[in-house]
Amino acid sequence: MRREPHTVQGPLQQLRKLADGMPPVVAMGFAFGRCDGQTLEMHAPLSLNVNDKGSAFGGSMTSLMTFSAWSLVMMELELAGIGADVFVADSQVRYRAPVHGDLHARAEMAPGQEWASFLDTLKQSGRASIHMQAQVVLAEGAAAATLAARYVAIAKG
Amino acid sequence: MRREPHTVQGPLQQLRKLADGMPPVVAMGFAFGRCDGQTLEMHAPLSLNVNDKGSAFGGSMTSLMTFSAWSLVMMELELAGIGADVFVADSQVRYRAPVHGDLHARAEMAPGQEWASFLDTLKQSGRASIHMQAQVVLAEGAAAATLAARYVAIAKG
Repeated sequence: MRREPHTVQGPLQQLRKLADGMPPVVAMGFAFGRCDGQTLEMHAPLSLNVNDKGSAFGGSMTSLMTFSAWSLVMMELELAGIGADVFVADSQVRYRAPVHGDLHARAEMAPGQEWASFLDTLKQSGRASIHMQAQVVLAEGAAAATLAARYVAIAKG
Repeated sequence: MRREPHTVQGPLQQLRKLADGMPPVVAMGFAFGRCDGQTLEMHAPLSLNVNDKGSAFGGSMTSLMTFSAWSLVMMELELAGIGADVFVADSQVRYRAPVHGDLHARAEMAPGQEWASFLDTLKQSGRASIHMQAQVVLAEGAAAATLAARYVAIAKG
């Protein structure tokens, strides 16, 4: 659901704290960008993610997309006041073009998914899954890489 | 093709040099293990790849599997004396179980693939693709995560 910027600041701060405790996320320089509740943007410098060809390492691109979509699920749970661990269950990635600059990713729900039914299922059964998507966006707007992934949330306690 | 250990030492050394120039690979502590030409093993410490739940970050697991399979393709090209850049084109990953210790990955060709036809196509047309697979293996031998990926090689100059 689209949200006012001020309502996501608290959850974003929580996510930054979690990210700061994850060595690979710190090492690859993942940083949170804009978030309106429907989409979440993340960035990472090429210098920390470069491969043997001077472009972005595929593993870094997939990590950034996987983490961006995970973060958006975590944010929705935080806004709903539900404590849960979230795991990526499976993913499909297409690498369409090399990235020669800094990495910019954007995550959102997959078409046809609804936060309300995901949260309801999680509350009722303690476990729910949701399909997400993310992409690494080039300066001109085309997708350099796309990810479709399923995440499973398991309620705490 | 299965090879004597001493024949892969040179290519492994070349790969180590490439890996040392890739910041995300260094940051996640990826290290080459055994290689017999058919399979290539890689390892990474949990401490550099841990997530918010104290287990291995999904992005690190996928990066390790993607890099292991890429390395095996690069090794085969080196042994064949062909200069080419290798790109991952697409991948499917399944995360089956959390990993609470160091990461151990193993890469190999996908069933039905043959190095000979891959190399022939590359020599003839300057471009060829090959399907690879990799997994993160738990201490008891089960797969914690599996990757199926297609790689494209493009001959240099």
